Amino acid sequence: MFSAQTYQDRRVVLQSNVANGILLFLGNIENPVNFEHNPYYFRQDSTYLYYFGIQEPRIAAIIDIDENKTIIFGDELSIDDIVWMGRQETLKEKSLKSGVQETLPYAELSQYILKAQASGRKVHYLPPYQSFNKIVLADLLSVRIAELQPSVELIRAVVKQRSIKEPQEIEQIEQAINVSNEMHLLAMRMGRPGVKEYEIANAIQYLAANKECQMAYPPIVTINGGILHNHYRLNTLREGDLFLNDSGAETAMGYASDLTRTFPVSPAFTTRQKELYEVVLNAFNNAQRLLKPGIRFKDIHLKAAQHLVEGLVDLGLMKGNPEDAVNNHAHTLFFQCGLGHMMGLDVHDMEDLGEQYIGYTEEEPKDTQTFGLKSLRLGKALESGFVLTVEPGIYMIPELIDIWQSENKNADFINYDKVNEYRNFGGIRIEDNFLVTDDGYRLLGNGLIKTIEEIENYRAEHLS
Amino acid sequence: MFSAQTYQDRRVVLQSNVANGILLFLGNIENPVNFEHNPYYFRQDSTYLYYFGIQEPRIAAIIDIDENKTIIFGDELSIDDIVWMGRQETLKEKSLKSGVQETLPYAELSQYILKAQASGRKVHYLPPYQSFNKIVLADLLSVRIAELQPSVELIRAVVKQRSIKEPQEIEQIEQAINVSNEMHLLAMRMGRPGVKEYEIANAIQYLAANKECQMAYPPIVTINGGILHNHYRLNTLREGDLFLNDSGAETAMGYASDLTRTFPVSPAFTTRQKELYEVVLNAFNNAQRLLKPGIRFKDIHLKAAQHLVEGLVDLGLMKGNPEDAVNNHAHTLFFQCGLGHMMGLDVHDMEDLGEQYIGYTEEEPKDTQTFGLKSLRLGKALESGFVLTVEPGIYMIPELIDIWQSENKNADFINYDKVNEYRNFGGIRIEDNFLVTDDGYRLLGNGLIKTIEEIENYRAEHLS
Repeated sequence: MFSAQTYQDRRVVLQSNVANGILLFLGNIENPVNFEHNPYYFRQDSTYLYYFGIQEPRIAAIIDIDENKTIIFGDELSIDDIVWMGRQETLKEKSLKSGVQETLPYAELSQYILKAQASGRKVHYLPPYQSFNKIVLADLLSVRIAELQPSVELIRAVVKQRSIKEPQEIEQIEQAINVSNEMHLLAMRMGRPGVKEYEIANAIQYLAANKECQMAYPPIVTINGGILHNHYRLNTLREGDLFLNDSGAETAMGYASDLTRTFPVSPAFTTRQKELYEVVLNAFNNAQRLLKPGIRFKDIHLKAAQHLVEGLVDLGLMKGNPEDAVNNHAHTLFFQCGLGHMMGLDVHDMEDLGEQYIGYTEEEPKDTQTFGLKSLRLGKALESGFVLTVEPGIYMIPELIDIWQSENKNADFINYDKVNEYRNFGGIRIEDNFLVTDDGYRLLGNGLIKTIEEIENYRAEHLS
Repeated sequence: MFSAQTYQDRRVVLQSNVANGILLFLGNIENPVNFEHNPYYFRQDSTYLYYFGIQEPRIAAIIDIDENKTIIFGDELSIDDIVWMGRQETLKEKSLKSGVQETLPYAELSQYILKAQASGRKVHYLPPYQSFNKIVLADLLSVRIAELQPSVELIRAVVKQRSIKEPQEIEQIEQAINVSNEMHLLAMRMGRPGVKEYEIANAIQYLAANKECQMAYPPIVTINGGILHNHYRLNTLREGDLFLNDSGAETAMGYASDLTRTFPVSPAFTTRQKELYEVVLNAFNNAQRLLKPGIRFKDIHLKAAQHLVEGLVDLGLMKGNPEDAVNNHAHTLFFQCGLGHMMGLDVHDMEDLGEQYIGYTEEEPKDTQTFGLKSLRLGKALESGFVLTVEPGIYMIPELIDIWQSENKNADFINYDKVNEYRNFGGIRIEDNFLVTDDGYRLLGNGLIKTIEEIENYRAEHLS
């Protein structure tokens, strides 16, 4: 946990950003795997962590703005619990570490809310994502689950605050990134013909676990990098394959990292791999250099797309004017997704609160229709203190190529004959995490090798 | 998956055990960790696995007894899904492997049920344990979650069938056990002063992962074995500690194992550790020998308790007549839990269906009041084909000792002065998995060392 003062200060800021009413926060539970008492590992809700820091299932909290008080709701261990689970720090003690003086049994939460509602006060709450909390909320508020109405005022206040990372948060994020850097180096040392994808996935998770880290998300560890959401891991690495590793550690306090590297299973990149890798790397480097307060991330995304197109034109896969190609979304045959997203206590930071509030503004809402842009999670102008990913890529998706070609889509910009030579190429992504600073940006963590030369040299040294 | 015939045969048997109506089965979902699209690893519902074998989230099935047909409900991948997730086996193909010819979109499940209800037919379903499925069921049946009424007829039919393991299921269970045996040997090689509990936990999980196994439950890997449900893993092993490892692998098909070994962190057991270990081992060996069809497991449990008491009397921690001591539940100061439980597709097999149906009968229901017996998950007479755990133990729980002593509880049977010398001793458990055969029992798996001599010798050989 951070200091009690940290959580107190954060709550004071939050209170100042919501006019009145009570703010209700539900912690997560231990979700059952195959029966009630066989749970998945516990992960506290990120907003709960941010304002209270307590890693404990089945607790809640209320910040009562009208009466200016904060209460943690939860149950102390019974003597029966202590017999089975051992003596532990009490909820009271944990609450004090969070700067909260008052704790009440969980069962009293309901009464507190009923009383507030009876006196016509507004109950603000965030969108629930775990089904258990949907049920709890509907019960507490005496409405049907479909009728739950999260508070936009509270969402905006939380997003405003969590978007700007404190120095101690950046420290946590860098800790996560540095573990990820080691995970990626390990994968580079392991990746050779005959190894199974899951062996590498297991090894990097083992490394992270021994540094008391979880995975921030299910790692994508694959020789089929063209499949964007690929969690199949039974393939065997073969000479000539490209290996894509998108994996990030999460610290014990809940802070995420999100890194991707792509390297050849053989000692060296083939000419074709080298050429496309340089295209992605060039787009990456240019995007990175554009990061600074005030610039819209959507513009950096489109600029990166243009750099990708320029490279693909040079290689003969695309043609025509790159700017026109991007305006016509022709790049989305190869770069179907977004350039990046916010990162913090969640790998897609605050995604549970709604992308429109995190990555966009009322004035410039998200484009939810256009292929490509509809997958861009962050579009709005950057601010000093944002932490985000930059992750351009080129993905060859045979199914998508076939659809586009059958429609002769964007034929002015795409050389389908040439593209079809690459249809089984796979995918390349390069991804790092950045802090937006007052005058630009800072690469977070201690840096991970990225150029073709660095990767080939590292592997030449470490592959036996 | 097993053969299509297997699933078909199982469904035919099930159908013959329920009079009429439709049987509704819900598969599990990918449960969100900290936002909707960041899920925990997927684990299919065990009963769904048993009758359909399909490892896929958000699917359901209906066995319509009245119309003698079976339908799998779920959605095929859209072309959008294929672009992001790659081409995969279709649900139709998977259903055929399960011997089911008919598949329908998930959305049609609701209509099917409405129609059945409208014509006055009964909809049988099992107790939901994941909150998502509670919501789904309540919606499908147009009732409130609190009003859901699982079908006891269906529960009994499923329990009857799943309780008797098929040879191919036993093969799976033994595969899981053999991986666990390796996990336990690895822990024995690693356990030495200075190592952290979580390093051992991580290493055994890594070993299992490389054999394509999950953990069947969160491992208990601890120097505080006296705490029964102990998932704290930050302690450092010290000279003189006892190390308790309760961990079991689960195969990719979902079959569990559940083994416990206890060994000293130092090369050799101390005299005190040796003496208590022999008491537990003796109770274990005697309990094992009693396993056979017809005997009530509750009687084996009480017999094991008596053997523990006899040993504790010999050591001076208890006194008086052992049988009387057990009748007065005096042993529960040291052995607070049950001797074992059913095991199969769940580590506590079918616990989601209700302990009263799995481990007890209507004629002899579970004792839910008495300390000790209320934690015994299995009490009823054994049948050939049951797979179960045998896991006696002795646990020194300072909080419990203090409570009993303050009440002078069972003072005729307990030498509190002597017991207090052991209050920080920790705990010992020995656990293996057995099949009940026609004429007795069979230890499952290839066997794991268990005697003091075996453990000390193995560690002497393998600890550097």
